[in-house]
Amino acid sequence: MNNDDGDDGDAITDLQTLIRQPSVSAKNQGLVSCAQVVVQIMRKAGIDSRLLYLDNLLKAEQEDIDPPFPTSPPLVYGEVKSKSNPNGKTILFYNHYDVQPVEPIELWDEDPFSGKVAGNFIFGRGSADDKGELITRIKAVEYYLKKTGDVPCNVKFIVEGEEEIGSIHLKKYLSLYRERFECDGVIWESGFVDASGRSIISLGQKGILSVEIISKGPSRDAHSGLAVLIENPTWKLVNILNSIRDDKGEILIKDWYEEVREFTIEELSFINKEPFDEEALKKEYGITKFLNNAKGIAVKKAFEGLPTCNISGLVSGYIGKGSKTVLPSIAIAKLDFRLVPDMIPKIQIKRLRKHIKAYRSQNNDNYDDDIDVRFLDGEPASRTPVHHPFVNIVKEAAAEVYGDVIINVSSAGTGPMYYFDKILGVPSVCIGGSDISNRAHSPNEYMRIDSLNKTIKCIAVILKKFGDINLNLNLWK
Amino acid sequence: MNNDDGDDGDAITDLQTLIRQPSVSAKNQGLVSCAQVVVQIMRKAGIDSRLLYLDNLLKAEQEDIDPPFPTSPPLVYGEVKSKSNPNGKTILFYNHYDVQPVEPIELWDEDPFSGKVAGNFIFGRGSADDKGELITRIKAVEYYLKKTGDVPCNVKFIVEGEEEIGSIHLKKYLSLYRERFECDGVIWESGFVDASGRSIISLGQKGILSVEIISKGPSRDAHSGLAVLIENPTWKLVNILNSIRDDKGEILIKDWYEEVREFTIEELSFINKEPFDEEALKKEYGITKFLNNAKGIAVKKAFEGLPTCNISGLVSGYIGKGSKTVLPSIAIAKLDFRLVPDMIPKIQIKRLRKHIKAYRSQNNDNYDDDIDVRFLDGEPASRTPVHHPFVNIVKEAAAEVYGDVIINVSSAGTGPMYYFDKILGVPSVCIGGSDISNRAHSPNEYMRIDSLNKTIKCIAVILKKFGDINLNLNLWK
Repeated sequence: MNNDDGDDGDAITDLQTLIRQPSVSAKNQGLVSCAQVVVQIMRKAGIDSRLLYLDNLLKAEQEDIDPPFPTSPPLVYGEVKSKSNPNGKTILFYNHYDVQPVEPIELWDEDPFSGKVAGNFIFGRGSADDKGELITRIKAVEYYLKKTGDVPCNVKFIVEGEEEIGSIHLKKYLSLYRERFECDGVIWESGFVDASGRSIISLGQKGILSVEIISKGPSRDAHSGLAVLIENPTWKLVNILNSIRDDKGEILIKDWYEEVREFTIEELSFINKEPFDEEALKKEYGITKFLNNAKGIAVKKAFEGLPTCNISGLVSGYIGKGSKTVLPSIAIAKLDFRLVPDMIPKIQIKRLRKHIKAYRSQNNDNYDDDIDVRFLDGEPASRTPVHHPFVNIVKEAAAEVYGDVIINVSSAGTGPMYYFDKILGVPSVCIGGSDISNRAHSPNEYMRIDSLNKTIKCIAVILKKFGDINLNLNLWK
Repeated sequence: MNNDDGDDGDAITDLQTLIRQPSVSAKNQGLVSCAQVVVQIMRKAGIDSRLLYLDNLLKAEQEDIDPPFPTSPPLVYGEVKSKSNPNGKTILFYNHYDVQPVEPIELWDEDPFSGKVAGNFIFGRGSADDKGELITRIKAVEYYLKKTGDVPCNVKFIVEGEEEIGSIHLKKYLSLYRERFECDGVIWESGFVDASGRSIISLGQKGILSVEIISKGPSRDAHSGLAVLIENPTWKLVNILNSIRDDKGEILIKDWYEEVREFTIEELSFINKEPFDEEALKKEYGITKFLNNAKGIAVKKAFEGLPTCNISGLVSGYIGKGSKTVLPSIAIAKLDFRLVPDMIPKIQIKRLRKHIKAYRSQNNDNYDDDIDVRFLDGEPASRTPVHHPFVNIVKEAAAEVYGDVIINVSSAGTGPMYYFDKILGVPSVCIGGSDISNRAHSPNEYMRIDSLNKTIKCIAVILKKFGDINLNLNLWK
């Protein structure tokens, strides 16, 4: 945990071992092997660890082998019962062992899977997101086990292998192993320190609804001379898209905002206090102003609590160089709608479908089978209340280790936090040691070694404080 | 010209020779070689023939070699002066030796460049479009030269190598060699007979304006979580496109229709008489109705005389499988506007740009440099008057050979006919022997041999009638 007991060298070695085992979920590359490496590192630390599967689980669990027909990569489960405090609270660490693809590989200065250490930095895909953070959790537990032979509170780990592809089986894992995963609070994967070294404690995630709108026209591409007679499906798509959102970003679908939970006064006061470097963001993306010319608190409120509709992909016809006189037979738009509490993806997609139907009949279009709205993926949003005792514990621990602490009411990103709330009924808090500029998902991803050690320390303090409490369950909920 | 003098065998052999020399302009494949083959076939027929270039022309002409830095494939020029009628009229045949790409090659039953003869059919890329039609012109001239040692009227040929890529240098060729190309009427490349064997004489072509609208956003792709703050250029593009055209197909750009020349009463009476198989077209493209539920005369008027705006290509962001949470930095639409007489591409693109500027300022958008409207290509429309004496000559000749004749006021397609009118000041008439279902631009393109021979005969009759007239030039214009 620090230079005195030499743990940091071991943390780096273990992180290097993890980085050197590629585990790109988008390519189904090395996932089982990496899960096994995680199990070994956990066992070495004294954590009881095994692989869990959705299928053929009994056999796979008994023999500790891959099931014959896996539908998902295994989930690594780890557990340490506190001997001195067996009836105390249980903390659960949620992390993931899969990583983003390394492309474009030519922009890396080193082999992305080398785990090269240079000064205060360790480089490699996953060094921050999320292998580095996972190591901080393991090493904090190991610290107590080595020092005292015990842990201050009960500890559980779930380390999934599909976070980078939308945690597609996590909900099933949580439902299937609900009893095994029972706990009182979740320390979330990832987590950041800002440029001034302040710890950012994030309490929420936006949800998402991803859809594909497919507009179908003639049975095959036609010569564009026929555009006088044959309706071009691309125009239909453009008209529909245009009807969905106004140029201020407001979504025009009936009842879209119906379930939106407003920020509480308490949340707003935290949002107000959060730093946000508007100019740095504008500079990074080469823009001169934000949407609707938003400034100050409006920027932060939008970032943390505004639903959006984004076109992430659009394709039709000829997209090569120059021109081709074609009337395409199909046009496709990919949209992602960011959701906030308490919007539910399945309800929102119904509203979208209804909107399109209404729009088309209003425009005297026959609503044939020529527009498909396909569900791609969806996750509801989640927000842990800022006044929750668990938040205080994490905040106090972080203050001890980092000094300054920033409470972030919600990230602008999306993750499966909702399911932990919904299925396990517990709050989640996100804390970690990655620089905001850690280049996760980009070439030359890195973790700072001093930050790694600080985070191990912070997690250890959280475990201690967690063991010390004996809260009324009603207060906790 | 017929079995009596054995010319049809020679026509087939020459067509096979031409087909066997690939000449795909889109791939710059075999163009010079094919032009040389055309010269040889013409010379064999008794036509004085040579290659013309835009660059280094003198040297290239003198030495009959490729110029050192050609910017375009050569144009084949051919000429026969009438000995008996040197001061009579001059007819010019416009054809092309380049062909469409053969892809998808796996759908061909034979090698696309084999020129295989099977019964009444000759197969291969270019067999109809346009090598087959070119051969009919050459053979008709050869018929007179072999039979009489003379031609009934002066004859010129221009055979270009870029028709399938928008005749990009033809205008320059016409300007540069204007005096050499002087003539009184142009027989256009291509031309059709319908399923009942009726000759379709087409008198016009729509024009085109192809543009690319480029909408620029952040300097690089952003995470779609930032869509609350960063304007997505795809939305801007969708909004702009939506403002350009209503769902009835009407173009909403100010003054767009300003120069549209209405059909004359005479033209309308011809359009009224034209057959149009609505059900066959619907069936071919798997649609149940035409745009605006058009029927009867409305369909034909639209087809021949309605300007359109077609989206031929659209692309932004992630277009692969599934979803990716990206806010794209750029979105591009390709549009082709079909024009009718007397719309001018350069004027129309100015109106489009003005429209976008006005639309954006109306919507309180700063008109920055974030929308580019790029000119891709443009050709004005052309329509030879139905009462022109040249039309009558062709009509009478076709009636002699084919029996029934259909006058088509304008094709729905686009070609460089306008430049012959504008630069050479002469009318063009399109007549030929291809089946409407000849699979030009598709696998297994074919020409019917009986039709080939009929067209040779028809062209020969046109030459004869052309030699016989001695019209007042003012009447002709």
